[in-house]
Amino acid sequence: EIAEALLPRAARALEGACVLLTAGPTREPLDPVRFLSNRSSGQMGFALAAALRELGASVVMIAGPTALPTPPSVERIDVETALEMYLAVMTRVADCDVFVATAAVADYRPVNVAEHKIKKHADEFTLHLVRNPDILGEVAALTASPFTVGFAAETDHVIDYARAKLQHKQLNMIAANQVGGAQGGFECTDNALTVIWDDGQCELPMQPKSQLARQLAQCIAERYQIYHASSS
Amino acid sequence: EIAEALLPRAARALEGACVLLTAGPTREPLDPVRFLSNRSSGQMGFALAAALRELGASVVMIAGPTALPTPPSVERIDVETALEMYLAVMTRVADCDVFVATAAVADYRPVNVAEHKIKKHADEFTLHLVRNPDILGEVAALTASPFTVGFAAETDHVIDYARAKLQHKQLNMIAANQVGGAQGGFECTDNALTVIWDDGQCELPMQPKSQLARQLAQCIAERYQIYHASSS
Repeated sequence: EIAEALLPRAARALEGACVLLTAGPTREPLDPVRFLSNRSSGQMGFALAAALRELGASVVMIAGPTALPTPPSVERIDVETALEMYLAVMTRVADCDVFVATAAVADYRPVNVAEHKIKKHADEFTLHLVRNPDILGEVAALTASPFTVGFAAETDHVIDYARAKLQHKQLNMIAANQVGGAQGGFECTDNALTVIWDDGQCELPMQPKSQLARQLAQCIAERYQIYHASSS
Repeated sequence: EIAEALLPRAARALEGACVLLTAGPTREPLDPVRFLSNRSSGQMGFALAAALRELGASVVMIAGPTALPTPPSVERIDVETALEMYLAVMTRVADCDVFVATAAVADYRPVNVAEHKIKKHADEFTLHLVRNPDILGEVAALTASPFTVGFAAETDHVIDYARAKLQHKQLNMIAANQVGGAQGGFECTDNALTVIWDDGQCELPMQPKSQLARQLAQCIAERYQIYHASSS
């Protein structure tokens, strides 16, 4: 195991590792035609799946609804709702060494899903929502949890929220970025990230998501190798 | 004006007419990242805009969020919410001869749109919604209303709902189709329609949306010519 830790930070730094990754938004139906969702395009997750694969990992990607093409040699499982994503993750998590949660999972879903299109004529309408499972938190809390990487997309206090989330959910790493502003994040081709772990952090500057994903994949591989060496 | 009514049902049956058309879904934000929307892909609306243009009409298309390319020689105005679509339609409606409402406009929007991403930790969450303007109904009720064509996408009792909507909103035509089933409608490349007017109806069978759009455009042109001749 010590030999593995001494390996150079080579091009195939994740050879032999299995990565489970979630990507894209989820959709929470109100009825057969209406849903709650969010502005995640899935671009960052798909680019990261490709970059992790390039480092030699076998990658299983569980993707919410997006029109993006599957990266080469990545196994893709399509889901729609947070509950479907939760079940798909829990079915595959025991086989993985690294779990990366890039998906923007809806926190809440409608209590009732109408079988037929809702016909409403009232001036007001109240939608009752219940909390979805916390996929990232549940994976990190598993007895034999994988090396777990979260994302924090926030409109403000990004770094504070991200470090709190890292500690509260006992993650190994978290990648934080600002959304809803003029630059970067959802619906943009460029993005910047602050990557945070227990005793350090690094800044990945504003750049196209495909390049940023390669830098983040390298960063995940480095921290995973240190973690793997110390826990083996 | 009589001469115009006697024109053959030629290839350019809408030459000189101005068509205003809405297409796609709308998105109703809860906060900077979350929204309510629906499964409309915009395909039928975009195909119909192209087909109406092919018949010689000048076409202005007001489109909700979709990734579809603008059809050749169609003027496109992009909007996100129902309120934005309403304002865009009301700004342009006085100049049009024909109004076609293919957009799946959200009936309701959140009462409050949070400026920052909502942080919620409760097990339940209640979302208060208010009714959006009825764009189609308001256009049809204008004193100098254009020839007005609506759509009815329903999961059941499609024809009954559509004829009721035609009469209640005083439309000139309505195109009805079943959605949320295994075949046709939202998120499908094929569709079938029943086109209904005051004293008649016709069936357009299941086929690719681009072909179906051409048949529907012909149907709109025929009914518009009769209407135009009788009201001139």
